[in-house]
Order: sequence, then C-alpha cells, then structure tokens
Amino acid sequence: MFESAQLGRKVDRDTFAQREPELREALLDAQLRLATAGFSVVIVVAGAEGAGKGETVNLLLNWLDARGIETHALGAPSEEELERPEYYRFWRRLPGKGRIGIFFGSWYTRPISQHSLGNLDEAGLEDGLRRIVDFERMLEDEGVLLVKVWLHITRDQQAKRFKALAKNPDTAWRVTKMDWRFHKTYDQFVNSASRAIRRTSTGQSPWHIIEAWDARYRHLTVAETLLAAIEQRLAAELPPAEAQSVVPAPVRPNVISSLDLSRTVPEAEYRKELIRRQLAIGRMARDLQDRKRSAVLVFEGSDAAGKGGTIRRVTQALDARFYQVVQIAAPTDEERARPYLWRFWRNLPRWGHFTIFDRSWYGRVLVERLEGLCPPADWQRAYGEINAFEEQLVLSGSTVLKFWLTTSKDEQLRRFQEREAMGFKRYKITGEDWRNREKWDAYEAAACDMVERTSSELAPWTLVEAEDKHYARLKVLRTVEEGLARALDRK
Amino acid sequence: MFESAQLGRKVDRDTFAQREPELREALLDAQLRLATAGFSVVIVVAGAEGAGKGETVNLLLNWLDARGIETHALGAPSEEELERPEYYRFWRRLPGKGRIGIFFGSWYTRPISQHSLGNLDEAGLEDGLRRIVDFERMLEDEGVLLVKVWLHITRDQQAKRFKALAKNPDTAWRVTKMDWRFHKTYDQFVNSASRAIRRTSTGQSPWHIIEAWDARYRHLTVAETLLAAIEQRLAAELPPAEAQSVVPAPVRPNVISSLDLSRTVPEAEYRKELIRRQLAIGRMARDLQDRKRSAVLVFEGSDAAGKGGTIRRVTQALDARFYQVVQIAAPTDEERARPYLWRFWRNLPRWGHFTIFDRSWYGRVLVERLEGLCPPADWQRAYGEINAFEEQLVLSGSTVLKFWLTTSKDEQLRRFQEREAMGFKRYKITGEDWRNREKWDAYEAAACDMVERTSSELAPWTLVEAEDKHYARLKVLRTVEEGLARALDRK
Repeated sequence: MFESAQLGRKVDRDTFAQREPELREALLDAQLRLATAGFSVVIVVAGAEGAGKGETVNLLLNWLDARGIETHALGAPSEEELERPEYYRFWRRLPGKGRIGIFFGSWYTRPISQHSLGNLDEAGLEDGLRRIVDFERMLEDEGVLLVKVWLHITRDQQAKRFKALAKNPDTAWRVTKMDWRFHKTYDQFVNSASRAIRRTSTGQSPWHIIEAWDARYRHLTVAETLLAAIEQRLAAELPPAEAQSVVPAPVRPNVISSLDLSRTVPEAEYRKELIRRQLAIGRMARDLQDRKRSAVLVFEGSDAAGKGGTIRRVTQALDARFYQVVQIAAPTDEERARPYLWRFWRNLPRWGHFTIFDRSWYGRVLVERLEGLCPPADWQRAYGEINAFEEQLVLSGSTVLKFWLTTSKDEQLRRFQEREAMGFKRYKITGEDWRNREKWDAYEAAACDMVERTSSELAPWTLVEAEDKHYARLKVLRTVEEGLARALDRK
Repeated sequence: MFESAQLGRKVDRDTFAQREPELREALLDAQLRLATAGFSVVIVVAGAEGAGKGETVNLLLNWLDARGIETHALGAPSEEELERPEYYRFWRRLPGKGRIGIFFGSWYTRPISQHSLGNLDEAGLEDGLRRIVDFERMLEDEGVLLVKVWLHITRDQQAKRFKALAKNPDTAWRVTKMDWRFHKTYDQFVNSASRAIRRTSTGQSPWHIIEAWDARYRHLTVAETLLAAIEQRLAAELPPAEAQSVVPAPVRPNVISSLDLSRTVPEAEYRKELIRRQLAIGRMARDLQDRKRSAVLVFEGSDAAGKGGTIRRVTQALDARFYQVVQIAAPTDEERARPYLWRFWRNLPRWGHFTIFDRSWYGRVLVERLEGLCPPADWQRAYGEINAFEEQLVLSGSTVLKFWLTTSKDEQLRRFQEREAMGFKRYKITGEDWRNREKWDAYEAAACDMVERTSSELAPWTLVEAEDKHYARLKVLRTVEEGLARALDRK
C-alpha cells in the first residue's frame, strides 16, 4: 500500500520557490470562494509520528487565511467527552458551512493505535472502521468535503528524524519517550494503518498517501491535494436537489393499526401504580451516576396523543438537577450550518443525567419526509445514520428508549375539539394540526417504516396505545422502569 | 437579616390545594408569554443545605413546562471549565431569550461556602461579591430577568431535617457527611451568606428571603415570587430604546494623533529581528501548558492598518495545534439571544492555547458606538463590562495583550488605492471602507476613549505605529514576547 510513497521523491529549493506564490494565491482564492459556498471542509491529517504533520499544517495555516480555519489537535478526551458517545468530541468540533476544520488526531487515531499496540482485537478494529465508514458517509451526504491525507515515512526515516530532532536543543523537546515506543511498533502500526486506509478509502473521500520524507515535496503535495479537492468541489457545486413530498402508501393491518386501543386502567389502580413506578424510577435514576450511565428518552406520536402529559409523569419521578426536556423547534443558524444530527448530539446527557426529547431526530423520517422539507435522499439515508447514532449512544452507557404514542383518529378529533373549546391559547389547535390530520394514513405509514427500520434490541421502539391516557402513561413508566433495571443490572 | 424568615409561617393543606391550580395556570400562561418576549429569566436558588431547594425546583418544573427550562446543578467545575475564567461555566449556560435557566449552585456558592469554611479571607469575599455585582448588573443591563431566592431554615430546623431524612430508608442517601460538616459551621454560613445577600441585593434584582421550614409555604411563596417577577417584567416590556449614532468630538493632540508615525525599520534588520522574536515566542508558547497559562491577543485598528499581516507574523511563531484566530463577523442567532460578551466567552482558550481576535469585543465601543448600532447606554456600560471580563481572564492565567494599529490618513488612502488597483477581490475596498474613512476623526476619538478606559496593567493596550509595516510587526512581536516572558516568570 505504501510502496508508491517510498520512491524518494523530492522537490528542490528553486522549484519550491517558483511554485509557492501561485499556490498560495490559488489557495486563498479557493478559500474565499468557499466562504460563501454551501459546504464545509474537513481535513484529516494522519500518518506516523515524525512524518511532519505539524509542520505541514503550520505551513497550510500560514498560506491560508487562518481566520476561516479551526484546528483541532485532539489528545485524550476530556471528562465532559468521556461521559458521552465516542464521536461526541468530533461532532462538537465540526466546522460550519464556509469554514475549514483540520483534525490531527481524528476518529482514526484510537482504532489504529490501539490495534497496533495490541489493545484492540480484529473484531474491535473492524467495528471501529465500520463506524468510521458510517460517519464519513454521513459527512459526505451532508455535503461536507472530506480531505484525508496520510503522510508516510519508512521505519528508517522515522529513526533518522527522531535522532535529528533529539540532537538539536531547539527541537529535542519534540521527541518523547512515547515516540520511541511507537517506533518499536512501527511495523504493527503500518499494518493497522494500511488496513484502515483500505477499508475507508472511498470514491468520494479517498485517502491521499503522500511521501513525507522530503519536506518541500510534502508541503507542496499536501497543498496541491487540498487545492484540487476544493476547486473540484467548487466547480461541481450544484443547486440543492429539489425536495418533494413523498407520501408512503398505508398498508393495513400494520403494527400501529393493529394496536388494541380499547385498553384502559381504572382510576384507583392508575394512582397506585403511578406512584409505585415513579418511586422505583426515581430510586434507580439516582444510581445512574455511580454506574456511569445516562438515559435518553424519545417521544414521538400523532398530534394530541398525550406526549406532554406522559413526559410530565416521567419527570415527576426525577430530580430536576438531573434531567433536561428538549423540545425540537426550528433549527438555529448554527445548527443549519452543520450536519442534521448535530443539534441532537449537542444535547446528549452526561452520566447520571436524563435527556428527554419531545419530538426528535425522527422528525426527518416523519414530518420532513411527508412535507417534502428535505430531498428524498436525505430522509432515506437518515434511518442508517440514526441507527449508527443510537448504537454509539448505547455503547457509551446510555439507555435509549423510544415511544410512539397513538390514539384513534376519532379520539384525536375529540381532543382537538376539546382543546378548541377550552380556547386557552396553550392548547390552541392550528391549521397545521388540521392539515396533519388529513395525512393521518401517510403519517401512520411513515411511522411504520420508521419502527421497522430503527427498532433494535439496543434501542427499541415501544408502541403505546394512548386512547386511554392512564394506560399510556403506565405503559411508558413501566418500560422506563424495566429499561433502567436492565441498564443497572448489566455491568 | 433572616429574622423575618423565622416567624413560623405555614400553609395548611386546604389553602395549598385551593391556591395550586390557579397558580399553575398563571405560571404556564406567564411562561407562554415569555417564550415570545425579548428576554430570558435566570433563577438563582440558594440557601442552607436541607432547606428544600431541590424539592421546590422539582415542583416548579412540574408546574411549568419543562421544555422551556434549563436546570443547572453545578458541582465542581469540569477540567474544560477549570482552564478558563471562573465565570466561564455560568456564561456557557446562560439561557437564550424566551427561556428560563435555573441555577442551583451558582456564582454565590464558592464565595459564601469558602468564606464560611475559613478558606477565603475578608478581602477575598469582598472581591468575589464585587464580581457578582458586576456580573448581575451586566445581566440586568442585557435585559435578563434575574430572580434570586434564598431559602432559610434555622440551625435547629436543619438538624431536625437531616435527622428525619436519615431515619427514612428512602431518603437516607440525601444526607451526607458533608451535610453534617456544613451543619457544624451553620453560624459561619449564615454570617457569610447574610453579608453576600446584603452586598448583592439591588433594586432591580433583590434577594427574596423565604422561610423554608414549611414545604407548602415554601412552594407557594417561591412560585408566587417567580410569577410576580415575570408578570411585572412582561407588563413593563418596552420597545427597545432608539439607538442613535454618537460621534465623539476629536481632541488634538491625543494619544493616537501624537504617535510618531515616521518610525521605520530597515529591511535587513527587520528580517533578523523577526526571526529572532518568532523563535523566542515559539519557545515560550510551548511552556504555557505546563504553567497553566493561556494567551488572548486582541487586534483593533483603522482599516488597512495591517492587522491581518501582523497577525500572520505572530501565528508563524506558533504551532497550529495551539492557536485559533477568531474573526468577528455578524453574530449568529444563538449569540444574539444572549448577552453581548457571550460570543467571546465561548471562544476563550484552554491552557497552552492562544486565541487571537481579529477585531473583538471592542467593536461595541468603536463601530457600534459610531454607527448607532446599539443604544448609547449599551456602549457606555461596555467599558466596565469589558474591564471585568478581562480581569477574570487574567486571573485565570491568561495573558491579555491588546493592540491598536494605526497609520496616517494619507497612508490609508494610498493603501486603499493600491488595493483597488490590485483588483483582487480579497482586497476589495467596499463603500463601507470609504464611509468609515470619512469618520476618521470620530474613530480616532472613540479609540482614545477606549484606550483611556480599558488600558490597565492587567490588560494593557499597546498603540502601534503602523505607517511602516515592518516597524509595526516588530513592535507587536516584541510586546508579545515580553508579555509571555512576564507571564512565565510570575508564579
């Protein structure tokens, strides 16, 4: 894999001096056009220690306008990051549209270095690489230009570089004990790296393997690679695809239409069980912190199905210090400038905390799909992205429980009319509610698609018969209680 | 101070049951109106351990719509917070307009508890309280409604409460060893607290001291206090003050007009000193991390004075992994929904890092003042807010250096014309540049006001004669080098 990067390529001083001015000019021009283009650039700089990653990025930042660039040199995760899914630290640093983010120490670092040190087995490596592929495909689909650069030096060159650095008092600090340890495992590192590169080099986001021994060759080649990628993308920039409403055909019976909505709970029984479940949930919630766990609850459902009242019965069981209810409203402009899931990632709970989403990322495959608010390709890929997202959440110690609340169409009508009669503005029924109601069948069908494609053992959907509010609330509380119990039992 | 909260007030069950529904209704209504009003609400809940802070907030969250509320129970700062100024953790959590933020464990916690435990002397307490007063005045001026609630119980009541909780197996976990330690120092706590309350109770944001022994009385009173505050504010909500341009009269000579712009540096000397200074800065920058220090550099100046080129000469000395150049553009909507300085707080560096601001918070007292982009009261109070902000920055280990670059008016004209002739869009001179030029005298006068009011030993302004670019760059580099040297020498 690295043979083509061991050819001894060099650039002499004159050639470099001749190329530099036009290259800088072109880079600045491309960056200026990028600033108003509708995409962001994510640059991954990787390679063996001593290959000159830092020097090259320093040069890039001097050639480009540093004000449009965010550089992230990620070492060990902070505690705020450790308590959330693995990719939280990358998501929170994604640049907005028009900007460039440079990642040294990226999502590749952990799988490659841990595998080469023998701390991650084959399955673990494959798992990590699969996650990378998912993440990068999401970035591409979201319009992010991903440029991945691998700087290669041979084992001997690495030793030479370290020795040279160590000899000079001005640079000796740059060679650490850790570097020499890495040097000893150079062969394993190259082995792990080449597997990672093979698995993650795609047509849209290939790895650029660059011979890195000669600094001038390395500098020029990295700069040219970046320039070509941005220019190509700027030239190809198309107007956004026309979105159109896609109305799924309802199939009957389906998992939602088959629900038995006649279930009810007598008042007295309801009161008793409600309090019992809330106490149990409250008790378990207090143990989450010590067990390094958190909880994410998602509520979706037809309008007026009683999401708000149900959420309230859950939060009554919790301590205000440890939960947050997030209502999904229109995205802010910072959110619109980044991939779809960014707004949910930023709300993820730390250990010991609950985040309760009143509507959620599933909006993409429900309202956005049905109202044509995004191109079909966007909601179609959302199922996979959501599954990957929830998998990471669960792996990081979150209990993920998702609830779909539904009433009959008649009951919805009754509740709409009741709310209108109350006239209290909090319960105002808008034209939108009535319009959604006309699409009842389509929403039901979209919800069935959603459940089919995103319900897993890790992050199951619970369908809740909400014709009787008491029945619905108890079913949700019971599910939360069981979910927490499972979470606290498993180590 | 607490006498009026030791009267044994109680609310019986019937009265509570009677008051509850209307109070909840009114609270929800107020919250709904708040959602579209132009301000946010910050609630501070404080008081002795065992006074029922948690219970009361839980109740409030059940009565209100939890989706519009962010609750922050702050314990020890995270490492991401520890490496930044003390108030970073509060700033990052300020709610946006239309929302409510509840802080248990607020900016009061550290000064009061540390003073009562004897870890903070009188001067330290006074200092902490002064900082609180500054911060809260800023919040008020920014239109935030601040509601401060102090829940009071006596020493005996505290002991009773702890014993009762400890006896019940369901609540025993709530009484910790720490609580009993606090109990022993109850008198000191009340002493420190009453001083804090006295110093920070202002006309606009008074403390509400609430007798907390009887839960029903406490619940009702807190809810009523909050309701009254929001309703009063909603009723008083005025259209924003008319902004108007305020053009300061230039005084000559002044610190800027008196600069000797004839200074130059010969090319050869420039090259030599440039490299020497950059090496020195690079060396010192590497030590910042170990010394728990960071650096914040601010660049302001007249148009075309060479800020960009100068910043580039600084960043050339630095490692890309450890600096960020922030260009101040139009605020995002998340930034507009919060106090003015929020957008700068969120960009503060961690230890070992530089943040370089290309234009900065001083925009408020320069362009915003002169173009009438904010009401006069806003820029007039900005000087004090900025001084408080920079003081915190310095206290947290940041070296703060501020540069004002200026040329003569003739030299600016020459550079404008040169840029227009180049025609390259990066250097495009806009109508705005020409309009600003017409206000040269006013900008100079505003800059003089700014320097006079915000240059301190802690965070000094350096006036830079930028007629000769080489001279300007060396002066900046020299100042940065000296600043870092001072920072690293002082312990």
